[in-house]
Amino acid sequence: MNDPKPRTAISPTREDNYPEWYQQIVKAADLAENSPVRGCMVIKPWGYGVWENIQRALDDRFKETGHVNAYFPLFIPVSFLEKEAAHVEGFAKECAVVTHHRLEANAEGKLIPAGELDEPLVVRPTSETIIGAMFSKWVQSYRDLPILMNQWANVVRWEMRTRMFLRTAEFLWQEGHTVHATEAEAQAETRKMLDVYEAFAHEYMAMPVIKGEKTAEERFPGAVTTYCIEAMMQDRKALQAGTSHFLGQNFAKASEIKFLSAAGVQEHAWTTSWGVSTRLIGGLIMTHADDNGMVIPPKLAPSHAVILPVIHKEETRAEVIAYCERLQKELKALHYAGRSVSVQLDLGEGRGGEKYWSWVKKGIPVTIEVGPRDIANDSVFVGRRDRMDEKRAGMARKDFVAGFLGLLDGIQEGLFRKAQDLQKRHTVTLTNRDEIYAYFTPKNAQQPEIHGGFVDCFFACGPEESARLKEDLAVTVRCIPLAHLEERGTCAITGKSGARRVILAKSY
Amino acid sequence: MNDPKPRTAISPTREDNYPEWYQQIVKAADLAENSPVRGCMVIKPWGYGVWENIQRALDDRFKETGHVNAYFPLFIPVSFLEKEAAHVEGFAKECAVVTHHRLEANAEGKLIPAGELDEPLVVRPTSETIIGAMFSKWVQSYRDLPILMNQWANVVRWEMRTRMFLRTAEFLWQEGHTVHATEAEAQAETRKMLDVYEAFAHEYMAMPVIKGEKTAEERFPGAVTTYCIEAMMQDRKALQAGTSHFLGQNFAKASEIKFLSAAGVQEHAWTTSWGVSTRLIGGLIMTHADDNGMVIPPKLAPSHAVILPVIHKEETRAEVIAYCERLQKELKALHYAGRSVSVQLDLGEGRGGEKYWSWVKKGIPVTIEVGPRDIANDSVFVGRRDRMDEKRAGMARKDFVAGFLGLLDGIQEGLFRKAQDLQKRHTVTLTNRDEIYAYFTPKNAQQPEIHGGFVDCFFACGPEESARLKEDLAVTVRCIPLAHLEERGTCAITGKSGARRVILAKSY
Repeated sequence: MNDPKPRTAISPTREDNYPEWYQQIVKAADLAENSPVRGCMVIKPWGYGVWENIQRALDDRFKETGHVNAYFPLFIPVSFLEKEAAHVEGFAKECAVVTHHRLEANAEGKLIPAGELDEPLVVRPTSETIIGAMFSKWVQSYRDLPILMNQWANVVRWEMRTRMFLRTAEFLWQEGHTVHATEAEAQAETRKMLDVYEAFAHEYMAMPVIKGEKTAEERFPGAVTTYCIEAMMQDRKALQAGTSHFLGQNFAKASEIKFLSAAGVQEHAWTTSWGVSTRLIGGLIMTHADDNGMVIPPKLAPSHAVILPVIHKEETRAEVIAYCERLQKELKALHYAGRSVSVQLDLGEGRGGEKYWSWVKKGIPVTIEVGPRDIANDSVFVGRRDRMDEKRAGMARKDFVAGFLGLLDGIQEGLFRKAQDLQKRHTVTLTNRDEIYAYFTPKNAQQPEIHGGFVDCFFACGPEESARLKEDLAVTVRCIPLAHLEERGTCAITGKSGARRVILAKSY
Repeated sequence: MNDPKPRTAISPTREDNYPEWYQQIVKAADLAENSPVRGCMVIKPWGYGVWENIQRALDDRFKETGHVNAYFPLFIPVSFLEKEAAHVEGFAKECAVVTHHRLEANAEGKLIPAGELDEPLVVRPTSETIIGAMFSKWVQSYRDLPILMNQWANVVRWEMRTRMFLRTAEFLWQEGHTVHATEAEAQAETRKMLDVYEAFAHEYMAMPVIKGEKTAEERFPGAVTTYCIEAMMQDRKALQAGTSHFLGQNFAKASEIKFLSAAGVQEHAWTTSWGVSTRLIGGLIMTHADDNGMVIPPKLAPSHAVILPVIHKEETRAEVIAYCERLQKELKALHYAGRSVSVQLDLGEGRGGEKYWSWVKKGIPVTIEVGPRDIANDSVFVGRRDRMDEKRAGMARKDFVAGFLGLLDGIQEGLFRKAQDLQKRHTVTLTNRDEIYAYFTPKNAQQPEIHGGFVDCFFACGPEESARLKEDLAVTVRCIPLAHLEERGTCAITGKSGARRVILAKSY
């Protein structure tokens, strides 16, 4: 087949202009699009299909760990937000405020807000305070605990600079909210959900992550401890991909969540919250996509494969399509990662090469081309999205079908290993300031985007020194890895002893 | 077992006070609760579990009929809403308006809205206009058509009088939006989705519905034709349970959705929209619940059965629980209506009778009590939620498990038949005004809620006569049944000829 392949299907490449490459991937893969509403994106069917698979996989894990779903109001009265001081401080600066409940035509016939509310409502940026108000009613006795709930919802944070999936005014997420009788139980829940996120990132997203604790500066507003999973993107920046917060008794006190203990004493409860969002799709893109388009791990791909009938002459059309339909049916009968295999049969118009490349750009794991000559041999012509450097090859249909699930597994595992290699290659252990400054300074001024990586070092900078590092290098502490939580050493920047071992990086 | 059963578990009964009975069912079954945010409810886990099953069943059907899911912005600029005159007229009077994008402390330290937006945003009451703006970009040629999309989302309509599930300021729904090249195709889509809703209502909700067309007064603002499914509740009022709108070219013109036809002509497209919401759960309650609590059809029940271990003596505890766990595992291995059978094992504290009744009130289809004597006989003690008048009976475990799916089917079908009987019993064909007035006038002033029903009659009233009927009897035309769309006769009220055959009823 004569492919109309340019040097790469996506322009610019990652090397040429990484941020612009990202936007082009979102567009070429038809994942999302900016909307006419400031900062709000439209998630298109292919992107939403990825989100549906993320939801299903996570939701199963939440339920397996004893959580139930519920739904709480979109609106939060301002007085609720104010109940926790750090919380309102963190969210008041960027929230959508509802002040009226109807529109009325003015003298010029222009519609203006009318029916002013007694108390303005904020569109939830997160739901601790409104859910806390309900928990305070539901929790009376230790017998009512624990409460283990999750909500799938939209939230709004009025971000000034937005980028599709990574930072949008409205985004979709899940927020878990739990209430416990003891500190230890709440701590265990916080860590358990972090483990769920890690396992999901590794097994489904094929995205290696580092579990860690956030420093005070990066903590969730109102939390005692924020845990996170951090992943390395292909430009070697870090992406915070999920967080789990131990809220101590802060929100229990703010919302008066109290219970009568087994010993007959009134106590404030202990709460947690944890969430991941459509930002994960940004993480998928920057972990796996290449200069030919999106690459989606099979476990999250809306479709696992596409069949492209090759029809050069009208008289072969019926035979080719019938063969493709049988093949589609065979593959659809298989199950992979908890759902039926999904196979597209692309009967659209357009030239074969163009159609093939449109699916490559969408990141479908497997392409299957079938023409009359293949049918004569009962064979199919197979391409793997993760191995674009290999020539597409013909193989017996029977073998292909029998090996299909193994093929998907191979792709899934290969993507994880490749991402893990990148992370390992660009994680360095450094022990002094000069090394760190050199590491985070671009070698090539023409190519400022892709450089640096994760620096594993001991760190004991105070606010001033941290601010300096951020100003000079745009670098911050991404987390204190849980694997090294107890280690202490000499700060690479200040030489202070008793420093904790952290990951430094630029970040999204 | 000594049941602490009052005359009925729910008070008041339907007979005593139907609206209050409804609220008590929502509470006793733990389906939802009012929130501190005006008009917004909290959907609790048991209620949300029903919604998840509704979603899954409908989503499968939408996908089978070629639709894909996507997600569009929560906010709609006022200027978008204004594009379709009837539409803005219909929704401007009750919408949440976002006017600011942050909160700031004033001189007294009180948080007030700040950062006024150039153009106010409305929280979507429905998404025709914002989705239309995207469609106008996506549709260029007849090759881009049809577009068949659906969105699962929250919407807000600032209703003044709210009732949980039936009418709330915020509710959850799905909204399908499609674009077609021809009028005929858009009409066919509108009717196809109405058929999907009818089949879902009958097969899953066990709720008989009448498919019909709305009169101009009850049409969706901006639609050419609104089709609906109408169900009879136990107080014999009608509930509009789903709508499907043929929008003609109204929204295509408002949003400039145009395409180049195969003949090379620029044409406006034809659009449809269709939706059902969490209101369906209100419909489930009023179709099936009784004076002992909720009754959930098995296909939508969050759990199909609960196992209640009967433990009178501590020394039998381990054996009883082990037996129950084995039984739970056996049942969970079964599949019903596209999902694994879900079985609760209630190990909570509390007396057996209380626990049993709490599950009855929640409407779980089957209760299974197991004590040492049952275990000795390898038998279980089974109760059916749909047959509370029958004594719960012991049966061999093996037979019970083997017949479990059939039992669920029997309950599902029985509920449908019972609801259908009610609808038939209270649907009358009337031919004159006096009969109609008598039919809709309560016989007993003490009992104003439950009376009347569906009147099948010919009807040709104008706006004035219709308003009179509404004022006198609170009765409106619910729909023109599709089954009788072409029939004409003599208006039962005015005696005019050429009248259409309609269903008159009070409604929610």
